[in-house]
Amino acid sequence: MSTTAERNRRLLVRRRPVGLPVTEDFELVEVPIPKPHDRAILVRNHFCSLDPAIRGWLEDVPSYMPPIALNDPVRAITVGRVVTSRHPDFQTGDWVVGLNAIEDYSIAAPDAFLRIVDPAAVPSVTLYLSALGAVGVTAYFGVMEVCRPRPGETILINGAAGAVGSIVGQIARLKGCRTIGIAGGSVKCRRLTERYGFDAAIDYRGKSPSALSAALAAAAPEGVDIVFENVGGLLLDTALMHLKLHARVALCGLISEYNSTTGPVGARNLWQLIVKRATIQGLFTGDFLDRFAEAQTALAAWLDKGLLVVDEHIEEGIENAVPAFLRLFAGTNDGKLILRIA
Amino acid sequence: MSTTAERNRRLLVRRRPVGLPVTEDFELVEVPIPKPHDRAILVRNHFCSLDPAIRGWLEDVPSYMPPIALNDPVRAITVGRVVTSRHPDFQTGDWVVGLNAIEDYSIAAPDAFLRIVDPAAVPSVTLYLSALGAVGVTAYFGVMEVCRPRPGETILINGAAGAVGSIVGQIARLKGCRTIGIAGGSVKCRRLTERYGFDAAIDYRGKSPSALSAALAAAAPEGVDIVFENVGGLLLDTALMHLKLHARVALCGLISEYNSTTGPVGARNLWQLIVKRATIQGLFTGDFLDRFAEAQTALAAWLDKGLLVVDEHIEEGIENAVPAFLRLFAGTNDGKLILRIA
Repeated sequence: MSTTAERNRRLLVRRRPVGLPVTEDFELVEVPIPKPHDRAILVRNHFCSLDPAIRGWLEDVPSYMPPIALNDPVRAITVGRVVTSRHPDFQTGDWVVGLNAIEDYSIAAPDAFLRIVDPAAVPSVTLYLSALGAVGVTAYFGVMEVCRPRPGETILINGAAGAVGSIVGQIARLKGCRTIGIAGGSVKCRRLTERYGFDAAIDYRGKSPSALSAALAAAAPEGVDIVFENVGGLLLDTALMHLKLHARVALCGLISEYNSTTGPVGARNLWQLIVKRATIQGLFTGDFLDRFAEAQTALAAWLDKGLLVVDEHIEEGIENAVPAFLRLFAGTNDGKLILRIA
Repeated sequence: MSTTAERNRRLLVRRRPVGLPVTEDFELVEVPIPKPHDRAILVRNHFCSLDPAIRGWLEDVPSYMPPIALNDPVRAITVGRVVTSRHPDFQTGDWVVGLNAIEDYSIAAPDAFLRIVDPAAVPSVTLYLSALGAVGVTAYFGVMEVCRPRPGETILINGAAGAVGSIVGQIARLKGCRTIGIAGGSVKCRRLTERYGFDAAIDYRGKSPSALSAALAAAAPEGVDIVFENVGGLLLDTALMHLKLHARVALCGLISEYNSTTGPVGARNLWQLIVKRATIQGLFTGDFLDRFAEAQTALAAWLDKGLLVVDEHIEEGIENAVPAFLRLFAGTNDGKLILRIA
């Protein structure tokens, strides 16, 4: 695949998805390569981070950032290289990570997201989209600031084989927790215990609600002190029935709900918060942008020492962006989902 | 009504209610007056506290205390007088509050709930079931320990005209908050603003979800910092859509769900916790039993100075226990619901 392009291919949002997004919700177009305005840069995007959060940005609903406007390109974190700089802090050839879009070229200007990264410091520049990017930083601050684990505590991670979940489990283990992961399918569950060092893994697929609850009771007979929630729906409701007194639930995502056409499910067993005097707290990485370096230093040290394993699932080509993105909801990605476009 | 009885009338649970309890779920029986065992007392109950929590204890579901067993009397906090004491700390004639039952006479022994109270210190001994009882203490620690209000913050109270809600609003106002109450009916809403000093009152009755949301937006254009939740369902979901960044939700009760025959609703808009990095925390008065005196001292001082208004709704006669209890769910009680049985 060439690393230059004469034209700028962009994946536009043509209509708002209803339920699971389909190809017709998007259109790949070619437009001229834009020119950066004063104090901005032109970035050649090499890799785009495909995250569940993108599904939220496709909805016309106020959230922590505005929806992606119709006919705008699909917003995504990217890592790429500066082609033209009209800002003194950036030089042609610098590698940068920023909140850009699924497109060959983006115009970027300094904001809370834009950072220069060093490709020589890592085995692969994609690490700045996985362990050393928003995913790793979310896991790090989610554990350290929201879960606040004490050695000997039991943590349950819903969506444990996902990009964030797999790192959460490993950090919690490093902090002395017993780790239980729930994931979809026996292959993922094996990966949890054999590769990520989880103490127990539960496959939710094919299990009735009562069988899922029984499996959790077997893995955590005294309940769980902490839940790290990426999924919602039945998995969250099951977790709520197994909380210990004063348990903490870190709410990072609700991926089971993002394509719902019947509205959100939420948490039906919320009354358990009263029974157990427990807390649910929302987690958003944007709150920790000014402490990115702190998390990256810790994560990089664990990576260097072989204490942290990170998997990346790299799909090829901007023309494959939509089917690649949909892997998140089918659960067919094996690690942090990244799209290589150059 | 006589204050002595030859026999012990007790309201037994004959079967577990499905949905709203009905008369046939209970039976009023007469049995001999029991004799206290060693280190126990016999209490003549005068007033029984009728609380939404009783509905929960009627379910065969593990909770913060065991369900009431079938054919046992209905558990309730009572205030009464010691008739016979076989414990050195209690004298005949002492007034006591304890977790007893809806019955003329209870056997009680020292536990975390049993306390001697002084009827001479209060205008009415029923205050030990309302402002100076679990209700007032729940409101006090709910505000001080879970809501943690800062002056100038806006608090929304769902179920604001209820026993706990009305006190929560007044304490929050004393702590410098702007107070918004949601209640059912124009009479209750007038009581919120005119009697309890709420800054705004919203009548949820007859309002569509969007009209309710619009009314809340009008009362709190910038959103709410704190929610004190007694109701759940649509009211909680509406509140979640109007949280400010880093808002706190104190979850005290979910009365709209207690008689549900289709299972709990919970919170469908839980994703707003991520958007607003907000927290829901369960609240249970049992956690503060050892600090009862601290809350009572503060509450008594506010009552003395006329800074706190407390309403009691007293129904008459143990034979009216069931219809009186059902007022909680019809919303036809005007203040803390208490049953006088002697």
